[in-house]
Amino acid sequence: MLQISQRGQDMPASPIRKLVPYAEAAKKKGTQVYHLNIGQPDIETPKMVLDAVRHSDFKVLEYSHSAGNESYRRKLVEYYHSVGIEVNHNQIIVTTGGSEAIQFGFMACLDAGDEVIIPEPFYANYNGFAVAAGVKVIPVTSSIESGFALPPIEEFEKKITSRTKAIVICNPNNPTGYLYSAAEMEQLKEIILRHNLYLFSDEAYREFCYEGHQVSAMHLKGVDENVIIMDTISKRYSACGGRIGAFITKNQSVLDAAMKFAQARLSPPSFAQIAGEAAIDLPADYFDTTKAEYKSRRDLLVKRLNAMEGVFCPNPGGAFYAIARLPIDDADVFCQWLLESFSHEGQTVMLAPATGFYSTPGLGKQEVRLAYVLNLNDINKAMDCLEAALKVYPGRK
Amino acid sequence: MLQISQRGQDMPASPIRKLVPYAEAAKKKGTQVYHLNIGQPDIETPKMVLDAVRHSDFKVLEYSHSAGNESYRRKLVEYYHSVGIEVNHNQIIVTTGGSEAIQFGFMACLDAGDEVIIPEPFYANYNGFAVAAGVKVIPVTSSIESGFALPPIEEFEKKITSRTKAIVICNPNNPTGYLYSAAEMEQLKEIILRHNLYLFSDEAYREFCYEGHQVSAMHLKGVDENVIIMDTISKRYSACGGRIGAFITKNQSVLDAAMKFAQARLSPPSFAQIAGEAAIDLPADYFDTTKAEYKSRRDLLVKRLNAMEGVFCPNPGGAFYAIARLPIDDADVFCQWLLESFSHEGQTVMLAPATGFYSTPGLGKQEVRLAYVLNLNDINKAMDCLEAALKVYPGRK
Repeated sequence: MLQISQRGQDMPASPIRKLVPYAEAAKKKGTQVYHLNIGQPDIETPKMVLDAVRHSDFKVLEYSHSAGNESYRRKLVEYYHSVGIEVNHNQIIVTTGGSEAIQFGFMACLDAGDEVIIPEPFYANYNGFAVAAGVKVIPVTSSIESGFALPPIEEFEKKITSRTKAIVICNPNNPTGYLYSAAEMEQLKEIILRHNLYLFSDEAYREFCYEGHQVSAMHLKGVDENVIIMDTISKRYSACGGRIGAFITKNQSVLDAAMKFAQARLSPPSFAQIAGEAAIDLPADYFDTTKAEYKSRRDLLVKRLNAMEGVFCPNPGGAFYAIARLPIDDADVFCQWLLESFSHEGQTVMLAPATGFYSTPGLGKQEVRLAYVLNLNDINKAMDCLEAALKVYPGRK
Repeated sequence: MLQISQRGQDMPASPIRKLVPYAEAAKKKGTQVYHLNIGQPDIETPKMVLDAVRHSDFKVLEYSHSAGNESYRRKLVEYYHSVGIEVNHNQIIVTTGGSEAIQFGFMACLDAGDEVIIPEPFYANYNGFAVAAGVKVIPVTSSIESGFALPPIEEFEKKITSRTKAIVICNPNNPTGYLYSAAEMEQLKEIILRHNLYLFSDEAYREFCYEGHQVSAMHLKGVDENVIIMDTISKRYSACGGRIGAFITKNQSVLDAAMKFAQARLSPPSFAQIAGEAAIDLPADYFDTTKAEYKSRRDLLVKRLNAMEGVFCPNPGGAFYAIARLPIDDADVFCQWLLESFSHEGQTVMLAPATGFYSTPGLGKQEVRLAYVLNLNDINKAMDCLEAALKVYPGRK
């Protein structure tokens, strides 16, 4: 009998996508489903970004350089300069989505059995990339009461062993929306220097900060060797399907190692590199408009949630996610019930149970993640559904 | 001091791309370089394939399904049917290039320490994917004298241990151009059944067979659970930069495991899925034209090579590569010398030393791989360069 691998068995299924069959069944019954479960923005990809691809005139769809087109990397240098990050084009490897940047970091810096510390709840796919790389994820729990602020340094230090090689953060955070403060970033700097660790900083949501600005890991002084930024155009320009990201570090050994993984897979996608390059010339007010839209959605969502009896949702400072605590027995059961057994005026809402974002078993059972990627009208309707659902849910607590 | 991982150190650099700096230097000196070193076809991507992307009118560049767009997978079912492979759309996972299909296979079926047997010389990046997955590559050597035919069964059986989990073939072969016969495929079937192994079949060059047809691993009877096809649109439609491939198997457990890896990286590139879907509607004579072009290039290349004193090149049955044995001391030194110290009428040729395609140290030192991806005129000029070079190369043997 042929067996799949142990890591194939250990690999977690996506907690965000696992309820999809129930959503499909609900739609087949004629129920309208509001998707707050996944970070697929409804905001249109800027026309000039798509047009750059549509108006291209090359004749051969060739491999690009394994690190990405040099012209694109040179434009990226300008973009990073505009957000206070000074790098040159040889310190950037264009990746197939932010996903591949995370994989390159795990592969180049970590061996099987090594440990990475990640504040939980965290982006669930870090688990998958860790399983693929044979790396152990060690969670440090942040709490909804503090709005998911960085846990105290002592909590990190309790978890550090001789196998600890890196800390992973996502800032602003998916799934919590938390934006790390300058003081918190300095604390992280202190830990990585004291314990000689890499800091993998996933900055996919850099522009989406509603009070203040992001402090990038690359704004920290004296940690050039430690810091690796994982980035992506997916959320920034509503270009998730492009599958273009970036792996950025000033550590030459890490760059050299990551380049070997980049060469093995030949090159990142060519079409979307054209899109990514064009995006850097978007007018300066592009993010103002997008950010204003997301901010008004966040304000509405958080207000509606906190107005529901027994619901608590801290106000997230960035990204386009919020985690709310609901008066329910089990988020997985509740989210499935919303799709299978509930509707309100022919409509229901799809949420992501927060359990999938925690590594510690049992945590997040009363929490759900909401992605505010729908317009204000739809968010209102989705909240009407949730409010009605909580009144009749049999597992209400 | 921060360290990169052991696997980052073990990861091989690309043998195909490592001479690139010397080629760049040659070009800066004004020397024209004929690139026979890399499988980047010069054949134009069919206009209707590029136009499908250029005429697309979606507004949001969204994630696709993690397995690829259903519409594309349903079209792929038609394509595979046309080449005698009967699968349904749920047995296909669209991947980011053939590269990712190989990675999914290694990850889903093999654990760290497991062994895969691969006839050498083989596609060098299998080494990279093996290092990433912690898998050991065990070579079985094929010889230039037999035109790189499948080594005898006994050679495989000598290498099988309790850790052997799979055999990897590429058919038609990169780098040798060898096309496995029906009898050889039956031999492979016998081995995998007898020893309960997976057969990973890289069929990137399926259409490029110049005498006879490819026997796909999926044409074999009674091995549905064992066979996984790794495929790509890169060479088939001159669409290398699209980064679209496919992972195909009828083994449901393997599919389920591979899907979890597919979900972790979210989705394959959206633009090029549109291109891939359009390609399936190319007129039936598309491959006839392309194949005729490659065949005439092969015929010229092989004829020119064998006409040179001391050179031997078996006639490859497929793909667009040939391996030739040259009267030289060291292929790595020679290929670098061609770029650094030689020119003929202001021109030189870039070849891939075959050493990088062998896993056994010391093999391939007198061999080079030539990709016939240039037009007849350029191939002639490249062969003029090689002929002149061999006459004056100081390390001639």
